[in-house]
Amino acid sequence: MQSIANKACIVGVGHTEYSKDSGRSELKLATEAIGTAIADAGLSPVDIDGITKYTMDNNDPIDIARNLGIPRLRFFGEVAYGGGGGPCGTILMAAMAVATGQAKAVVAFRAMNERSGRGTARFGQAPTDESVTGVKSYMSPYGLFSPAQMVALAARRHMHLYGTESKHFGEIAVACRHHANMNPDAMMYGRPMTIEDHQASRMIADPLHLLDCCLETDGGAAVVITTPDRARDLKHVPVHIASAGLGGGAWNHLHILKDVEAPHTESTVIADHLFGDAGITQADIDVLFVYDHFTPLVMMAIEDYGFCKRGEGKDFVGNGRLRWPDGELPLNTSGGNLSHGYMHGMQNNIEAVRQLRGTARCQVKDADFAFIAAGNAVPTSAMILRRDGA
Amino acid sequence: MQSIANKACIVGVGHTEYSKDSGRSELKLATEAIGTAIADAGLSPVDIDGITKYTMDNNDPIDIARNLGIPRLRFFGEVAYGGGGGPCGTILMAAMAVATGQAKAVVAFRAMNERSGRGTARFGQAPTDESVTGVKSYMSPYGLFSPAQMVALAARRHMHLYGTESKHFGEIAVACRHHANMNPDAMMYGRPMTIEDHQASRMIADPLHLLDCCLETDGGAAVVITTPDRARDLKHVPVHIASAGLGGGAWNHLHILKDVEAPHTESTVIADHLFGDAGITQADIDVLFVYDHFTPLVMMAIEDYGFCKRGEGKDFVGNGRLRWPDGELPLNTSGGNLSHGYMHGMQNNIEAVRQLRGTARCQVKDADFAFIAAGNAVPTSAMILRRDGA
Repeated sequence: MQSIANKACIVGVGHTEYSKDSGRSELKLATEAIGTAIADAGLSPVDIDGITKYTMDNNDPIDIARNLGIPRLRFFGEVAYGGGGGPCGTILMAAMAVATGQAKAVVAFRAMNERSGRGTARFGQAPTDESVTGVKSYMSPYGLFSPAQMVALAARRHMHLYGTESKHFGEIAVACRHHANMNPDAMMYGRPMTIEDHQASRMIADPLHLLDCCLETDGGAAVVITTPDRARDLKHVPVHIASAGLGGGAWNHLHILKDVEAPHTESTVIADHLFGDAGITQADIDVLFVYDHFTPLVMMAIEDYGFCKRGEGKDFVGNGRLRWPDGELPLNTSGGNLSHGYMHGMQNNIEAVRQLRGTARCQVKDADFAFIAAGNAVPTSAMILRRDGA
Repeated sequence: MQSIANKACIVGVGHTEYSKDSGRSELKLATEAIGTAIADAGLSPVDIDGITKYTMDNNDPIDIARNLGIPRLRFFGEVAYGGGGGPCGTILMAAMAVATGQAKAVVAFRAMNERSGRGTARFGQAPTDESVTGVKSYMSPYGLFSPAQMVALAARRHMHLYGTESKHFGEIAVACRHHANMNPDAMMYGRPMTIEDHQASRMIADPLHLLDCCLETDGGAAVVITTPDRARDLKHVPVHIASAGLGGGAWNHLHILKDVEAPHTESTVIADHLFGDAGITQADIDVLFVYDHFTPLVMMAIEDYGFCKRGEGKDFVGNGRLRWPDGELPLNTSGGNLSHGYMHGMQNNIEAVRQLRGTARCQVKDADFAFIAAGNAVPTSAMILRRDGA
């Protein structure tokens, strides 16, 4: 094999409601989402023999298997770096397992009470307050503690270099909210937002306004992956993994302190092969999903993945390009991390599948290819999904 | 692909000294071991584009990349369940990455100051004292806290059912010590042990004596994995991954409370396909590596993987069968977790590679196939390695 391209499909998707207080355990959220995804595929738990997860997820695959009735696992794997490695990395790893015949059908998921609490500790390792070690030791003395603070520096540098303004970042937030307002499942449904609202929202870490920052969410989301051959017999028309990648390197400081001018980034490592593997170019992408933790990083991802050149993001995101139904390249069509729910990007995977099944609410007409980028400025992951027959 | 069989090779191995106090950081141990493995392969850090690790390992792949001069990573993955999933699971995952073309050369490693300290905390998650949640909540009130206590129950049940005696478990410890005493790198080199020593050693958790229990070790160990095609141009004759597997299921309680009579175990999930994938049977194995955390679990693994029937382990391990040079099936020929060093099984992988290169100290004549089982009674992993040309 030259790559994982076209060796695996997404055949089922499922999620819980997204809220600020789920009222139940993270294990319950995981089993609900996974159970829904398995049923959506037309499978039952006995058909599942693999689970991939975000390392940071508190749920244990064996606990999930026991509670769902999955009798045995022949593959389990984890991807680190949270919303960077997890969203597409767990799907890539599942694809590898089925493509190599080591498993038949694998679930990738994310479930958490991120807003209401940290849930139960996982076996042998529990999330703790981050200690100040490694690279962080160099940043903390200068007051760089939170992701928003770190992203603010990169955003300001982008503004300085390229003339980008806060309102350009705001275009991204407004596009996501626009889509959320057509999605009754979105946490921000019924709460429209204008660019003026964005500009007027309070400052979190200058130049980041409140509305540049993602939600915090309780919920669960899951997808089921199998081979194209097996997918043929299942309930839905399969959605193909046209290509996928993980990327990182020595420039990643494990915090989202992004070097705006770096020639190589976590995203360019993936961009170098992702489109070639899929046999398409950026111009072939019909619907765009970019992990929207903070709007400036969305713009930088769009640039790094070659949808426009460095510094041209401010123009690219304008003129309603990212808004369904009239925009050329609708972004995060269910509302994204910013306005749908912050499932660390897994919700974008589900919406991308719906787009390529033709069942999305903000359905992009004749969508053949969806591009999905996970969180950048940390080691990251991305993939291109293809409509069956495209 | 029907399986990962024969799609990847181990081309480099490396390790630090194994000790009770390394005197340096876990990151230093990791980079030393990995650097040595890369050099052993005849590669340089710029040739490496993937890292797989035990989830529980405190080292971060990006830190390793930065410190070793690996410019970028196109694959990173983690395997949970410590010495169960890690030893062969990290190699399976690396094999998947190269077999699917997602990476060219991947390092799998384990590095820790397990004896002298817990080292630095890893990004976002740090090892903490285990909290009492999940299944553990049901065991702690009865005083079941430590692995040795849990294994003691399974050992006693095996003794009750099958007439196994402590001296049979002792055969396993004596075989490992016998090999360690031909290995100047082993922590127990120069400290011979007889079955009488085993029987006289103090009781830890009846029926487990001190000499039934593994070491605690500081050190690092690593292997380099690539495709058979690329392996041809490298320094050593490649060692082929004839098959590999991960296994777990609802019966795994995430603690090593083993149900001795269970029809299916984490090991049988793998045994079901491992030999078939490799196209051989147990009789074709020339040298045996079984994760020796506690001697009774080694015997149960030998049974579960079909080297003998349930209950026959006590006879199988006798008559010097496990001891080089005269035994039919030498076990852990560098000394294992019990007497070489407890690198959570990674040291067994390195020794298996040396056996199939023909460069082991206790070299098994004409060794074609090595079987490696990781820690059982938790979700586990295993693989069969094949000599080039066999």
